[in-house]
Formats: sequence, C-alpha cells, structure tokens
Amino acid sequence: MTLLGLQIKRLKADSLDFDAQLSQALAWDGIADKSIESNVQDIIKSVREKGDSAVIHFTQKFDHLSVNSMAELKLSKDYLRQALKNISPVQKDALELAARRIRLYHQRQSQESWIYQESDGSVFGQKITPMDRVGLYIPGGKASYPSTVLMDAIPAQVAGVPELIAVLPTPKGQCNDLVLAALAITGVDEVYTIGGAQAVAALAYGTETIKAVDKIVGPGNVYVAAAKKAVYGQVGIDMVAGPSEILVICDGKTNPDWIAMDLFSQAEHDEQAQSILLCPNPNYIDAVVDSMNKLLPEMERRDIICASLNSRGFLVDVTSLEQAAEISNRIAPEHLELSVEEPDKVLSLLRHAGAIFMGRHTSEALGDYCAGPSHVLPTSGTARFSSALGVYDFQKRTSLINCSPATAKALAKTTSVLARSEGLTAHARAAELRDPSWPDGL
Amino acid sequence: MTLLGLQIKRLKADSLDFDAQLSQALAWDGIADKSIESNVQDIIKSVREKGDSAVIHFTQKFDHLSVNSMAELKLSKDYLRQALKNISPVQKDALELAARRIRLYHQRQSQESWIYQESDGSVFGQKITPMDRVGLYIPGGKASYPSTVLMDAIPAQVAGVPELIAVLPTPKGQCNDLVLAALAITGVDEVYTIGGAQAVAALAYGTETIKAVDKIVGPGNVYVAAAKKAVYGQVGIDMVAGPSEILVICDGKTNPDWIAMDLFSQAEHDEQAQSILLCPNPNYIDAVVDSMNKLLPEMERRDIICASLNSRGFLVDVTSLEQAAEISNRIAPEHLELSVEEPDKVLSLLRHAGAIFMGRHTSEALGDYCAGPSHVLPTSGTARFSSALGVYDFQKRTSLINCSPATAKALAKTTSVLARSEGLTAHARAAELRDPSWPDGL
Repeated sequence: MTLLGLQIKRLKADSLDFDAQLSQALAWDGIADKSIESNVQDIIKSVREKGDSAVIHFTQKFDHLSVNSMAELKLSKDYLRQALKNISPVQKDALELAARRIRLYHQRQSQESWIYQESDGSVFGQKITPMDRVGLYIPGGKASYPSTVLMDAIPAQVAGVPELIAVLPTPKGQCNDLVLAALAITGVDEVYTIGGAQAVAALAYGTETIKAVDKIVGPGNVYVAAAKKAVYGQVGIDMVAGPSEILVICDGKTNPDWIAMDLFSQAEHDEQAQSILLCPNPNYIDAVVDSMNKLLPEMERRDIICASLNSRGFLVDVTSLEQAAEISNRIAPEHLELSVEEPDKVLSLLRHAGAIFMGRHTSEALGDYCAGPSHVLPTSGTARFSSALGVYDFQKRTSLINCSPATAKALAKTTSVLARSEGLTAHARAAELRDPSWPDGL
Repeated sequence: MTLLGLQIKRLKADSLDFDAQLSQALAWDGIADKSIESNVQDIIKSVREKGDSAVIHFTQKFDHLSVNSMAELKLSKDYLRQALKNISPVQKDALELAARRIRLYHQRQSQESWIYQESDGSVFGQKITPMDRVGLYIPGGKASYPSTVLMDAIPAQVAGVPELIAVLPTPKGQCNDLVLAALAITGVDEVYTIGGAQAVAALAYGTETIKAVDKIVGPGNVYVAAAKKAVYGQVGIDMVAGPSEILVICDGKTNPDWIAMDLFSQAEHDEQAQSILLCPNPNYIDAVVDSMNKLLPEMERRDIICASLNSRGFLVDVTSLEQAAEISNRIAPEHLELSVEEPDKVLSLLRHAGAIFMGRHTSEALGDYCAGPSHVLPTSGTARFSSALGVYDFQKRTSLINCSPATAKALAKTTSVLARSEGLTAHARAAELRDPSWPDGL
C-alpha cells in the first residue's frame, strides 16, 4: 500500500535522545494564530453591545443563513421530537441505550453535602448545589456528533442543573437529524441554531432573547475554543480542548488488527489527532504496522488517518510495561488503552490519564459512545491537571462555618494576632468584638 | 464624622427600578486594560524563549533587585526556618493553630477512588490521583498575607501533591517574616523571590532552573491575573480573581457595631472591595450607619474603608429574609454572613455563595484566618459556577472502563450504529472486531 504512504514514526525508549524525540513528537502549540483571537474579541464585543442583532448578523455572515430574527433561529421541542421519527429505530435504540448507560455511570458521581460538629456545638461543612443554567455548545458541519450531546447534557442533568440551553451552528441550513434526536432524548430546554464565537458570546453575556448561562461546555473549532477562553471568568467553561489523542500500552499478545484499528479510530478524527503505541515486543509493533498497511485501504477516512498517523502518530519500543507506564505518565494521554493480560497491575503505576480502557476487549471506541463515562476528556497532556467532564463540573461547593460563642472567642485570639500582623485591623476588631473578655467586647 | 464623608448607597428592594440599580451597583468589568494583556503576553513570550535570564531581567526591572543568578532568588529551608524564630511566639502559635484547623477541615474533603462491577464482570470506576507539582503565587508588597500561604498550600498537601513550589515577589528586597514563617510551617519544597507575569510564565513553562508545574494557585495583582488567564490551558489555574466582597443578611437583632465592623473588614482590603448589607428593618440599617460613622475614625485603614464603601458598598431595605436570600442568590457573593436567629432556615434558600458564615458570633474574619475552610473563594459573582479552593482542586479523576467480552460484544452493536451514523468507520470497526459474531470479528 505504498500509494497511501503510511510512514509512522518509530522511537526507542532506551535511545539516548529519547526524551528530546518524545518532546518533539508531542509538541503542539494551542491557538497560535493571534488574528483568530483578535477576530473573536471583536465578535464578542459586538454581541455584548448589540445583542440579538449582532448574533443574527454573524449567523447570516458565517453560516450563510437568511434569517432576520432570533425566533427563526430557535428550534421547537416539536421539531426535535420529529427528528426522533426521522432516524431509524436502530439508531433511536442505540441513542437511548447510550443515554441510559451514561446516566447510570454519572449517578455514581453524585456528591453529598456534609457537616460535622465540634464538641462545643460549632458546625463546619460543605453544601453542594447545582448551577442554575448551563450552555451546551454542539459542533455543526463535518464534526457533528450526537454522542457529544449525550456526554455533555446528561452529567449536567444528573448534577441537577434545572436549565440547559444548546447552541449548534447549521451552516447553509445543514442539520443532522441524529444530533436533534439526541437533543430530544436528553430533553434540553432551549435550542438555537447558532454557533461560533457569536454563540459563545451570547451564552456568556446574554442577549434580549438568550438568558446568560453560568457555564459553557462542549467542543468546537479554534474560534469556539478562543471564544471560550476569552469569556472564561465571566462564566465557567469545561476546558480549552486541543487535538485528541490515544495511547495504547500493549504486551504484544492482542490481535494486532484490533490495535491497528484502535490507532485508526483516533487518527480518523482529524489530521491533528495523535495515536501512540508503546510495546515491549518489537516484532509485535511490526505486526501492528503490517495490520495498518493491510487495513488502511478499506477505511473510508484513509486520507485523514494516513495524514494524522504520518504527522502526529508514533510507535515506541519500550523495555518493559513499567517503562511504558512511566512514559505514559509523562504524556498524560486523553485516552489510555491497557491491552495487557493484567491491566490492574499497570493501572497501579499510572498517575495521569483522562480515561483508561482496560483489557483486550475494551476498545476505546466503546467509551466514545456508550460505556458510560463521558467522552469529554482532557486532551494534549492536560490530564496532568484536569479530569473527565462529570457531575462535579456542574455543581459548586459552598463552605459552611457556624461558630458557637466559645469557638468564636477562641478563634478571635488567633484571628486578632494574624490580622494585626497583616495590618488588617478591622478584621481583628470584627473578631474581638464577639469576645466578651476583650476590653471592648460585648 | 462628615470630614471622612461616609456616603454609602442605600437601595430599596421593592422599588420599581431595583433590578437596574442592583446591576449598576454590582458592575465590574474584569481586566479591562488591553495594554496590560499585551505587556503580559510579551513577558510570557520572553520567559518562554530566554528562560532564567528573562526571569532575572524582569526581576531586576520590576522588583529593583540587583541579582544576576537564579541561585540568588532562591530561599533556602534554613532561611525560612530562621523566619520562624524572628516572629513572636504568639504569632507562631497563631500560625500553627490556623494551619492545624485548616488541615483538619480539608481532610474531610478527601475523595476516594471507586469502582463498581456489572453482573457479567465488567468494571467501571473513577481513579483519584493528586497532581505531581503545584505552584503557589504569594503576593508581595502591601498585600502580603501569611494566611494565604496556609490556605493555598495545605489543601494541596492534603490532596497528596508531592511537590509544592512557591513564588513571592520581594520588591526592593522587602520580605515579610510572617509569610516566610508560614512557608516554613507548611514545608513548601522550593521558594523563589520572583513575582508578576514573569513568575507565572516560569511556573507554567519552566526554565533551566524552575521545573514547570501542573497548576498555579494564589491571588495577585492585575498582571498576575492576566498572566494566569494567559497560561490557562498550558497549566491549570485556580481562578481569575476579581475584587472581594461580603454580603451580610441580618434580621436586625445583632449588635450593629458587629455588623459595621464586618462591613469594614471587607472594605479595608482595597478600594474595589464590596460590602453589602440586606436587612428587613430600616431602623436597624440606620443603626449600622450610625455605628459605621462612630467606628470609622478609629480605623487605621479608614481612608480605604471610606473609599470602598462610598464607591462600591450598598445597603438594601428588603421586605423579608426570603427576599434577602433571593437577592443574595442573584449576587452570588464570595462571603455571605447570616447574622440571624435561625441561620439554617435561610441557608435552605441559598444557592450560590463561596462561603457562608452562620450565626451572630461567626464573623467573616474568622474564616479569613483560622476557622478551617480555605479563604480562597470565588469572587465577583463567580460563585454561580465555581467553588472554594479545596482538596479536589489538586486531584484529578480518571474514568476506568474494563469490559468483559460479553459487554464488549453488547456495546459493539450500539457503538457500531452510532459511529457509522457519525461517519467514523474506524470507531465502528474497532468495536466490531472484538465481537466474534460480527462477520469479520475474531
């Protein structure tokens, strides 16, 4: 299959310059284009100043829709329900099964408020409350994924968020029935066919028609990512997502076709996606390359797969599974497959990953659709410090402090010393006033 | 006290234009100055390109330190321990008591990994791991707070973060012994006397001397806030903090001096700080104003208090405690005091707040120093979507999926249908290959 030209990089973990090679293979520099940031700032400013009319203007301009009012951009619940009839019963069943499993998993994430009492009656605790209103960004066009609707909306619903509003661009009026069906199944409260930075700005600041939300979640193109970063602070956001990646640790005993296809499934997303295989058996890596060459011609998205593997993919000869785990920790992959005999053993060595797929039968693709956990995961190494989207992303924790007079008195002394050391006398006085033994206490 | 000119706004919640008045009173527009953002971008770029030498250059320039190496900017553990001897025993005891209480509260926040098994042996779960390395930004100069060291470092330690690095600017060499003592008490691993955007950039990207961190927490001036927002995505950050605020809901039966001082304690932070009182008894609001006028002349920071209260503070006549709770939910205050007879009753009506101080004896100041919960709280209404800094901010949740062959087969069908609907054939094939009943399965 030399015509397709699959030329995937191969590294050796015990070579002297492996660290440098790895850094180079992983390099990716976020939103590098300053002009995108500046365009996005202009769009946000315009939406803040002109509200609905700016949203309509940009939707005409970027999505080529001839609309003149926000009403034309709103999809009714009836319209969504109709989409449920337009898809096949098999598709409907698949969406419903996926929704059910996603709901079941996320119910395990529920957090409870808690309090504890000290011996003198003082109470300390943490109150959990859902956000009031969340915006879901649903990508349109070629990357229009009904699964993302389920993965974003259901954790928010399990968290108890009472109002969900979805935005999805429909360039030239194109709209995916499965996406609408997924919106119908989740029962999202409002849906607008808007997208891009204008939709993010409308959600963050509100317009005459759209009430501002507390948080915006969901993936999008670079404009959407830049807009989300720009409005972060005004509202919460889930993450600034970079390209998606998979890292497979294999002991060399899985059917090589399976691993080849798992690497393809990541690579087919887009040219920036990254597929990585770590294996202690060099012959097995060769076998996976053979499988890739054999299977590639059958793939519908072979051009994207080939481009992605050639530019971003790499295969690593490691000396042991322990070394593989160490390298994986350095990469902190979004998706991590443990295609090994005893995945629990490797798991104990792992510190950073978005989601871990354990055992030879657990292909990463199951997690993308229906296993249960959200497929919205930290990309590009951000699993070092962030987590899968979950129920906790839609809830807040409020600290509770209720001091008895005795505790207030005891803490007044400490507060007074520290506040006065910081030059904050009113803080000290506020505490002292509650202590009757202080000269001017009550 | 007309010389000091305390002129605090008073609103009536049942007036027709209350909503507009409230919006105006709350308006605050983040980092509005574009030149700050652009300066910060230049500093970050320079640190990424030139590493240590850029950090040294900016420290010379902005902090007026005549240093020529990173070694001169590092504080040894011995140096920190010496600070513990320089402070008074009373101060040392106060820091240690505060540290102990903060640790005890945060130990209650520990999250546990969990798994559950489905009937066919498939396992799903969530693994909790701490971050590897966290950077603490400690402000220097006039807002140099030892309490912040404790409030940032201890939750990270309870979370299990093995490496903590602190940065604190020492303009013209000025350094606060209490801050150093707090660093000694927490046992932070490395301390550098650097600050501003250059310190944030060094922590985010690393230099020859400073190893990059996974997350940066801690307050700072507008340059630090802009730098944290700029590096967000490369590393995690706690929040982009705005001005601090307190909202007091009082039933009119607390000693008015206490409430006046609580409002002062917020106002004394800086001119942008916001103090708000909601009360159903107009005569009591008058009494608090009288107390403020009486107490203001004694305050060391009376000029800041007066400027803050006049420009940002306001008092609201409400018709009931229920209405007060509703208004408070709209404001989503950082600090919320329930100075009422039955704080639990009002608590049940509250949805958004950083921390809630319940009962007449619980002055907010106790929470700033030693009650236990972190004083790093969401400001400027961001409690709508974010939470007090806590143990969970230093841990990540990784989803675990381990499918039995039977589950893999069942989910392969759903995955195949949905993946093919999305045009992602490699995803479908990866799942199908694991299903022996599929034509070309194993």
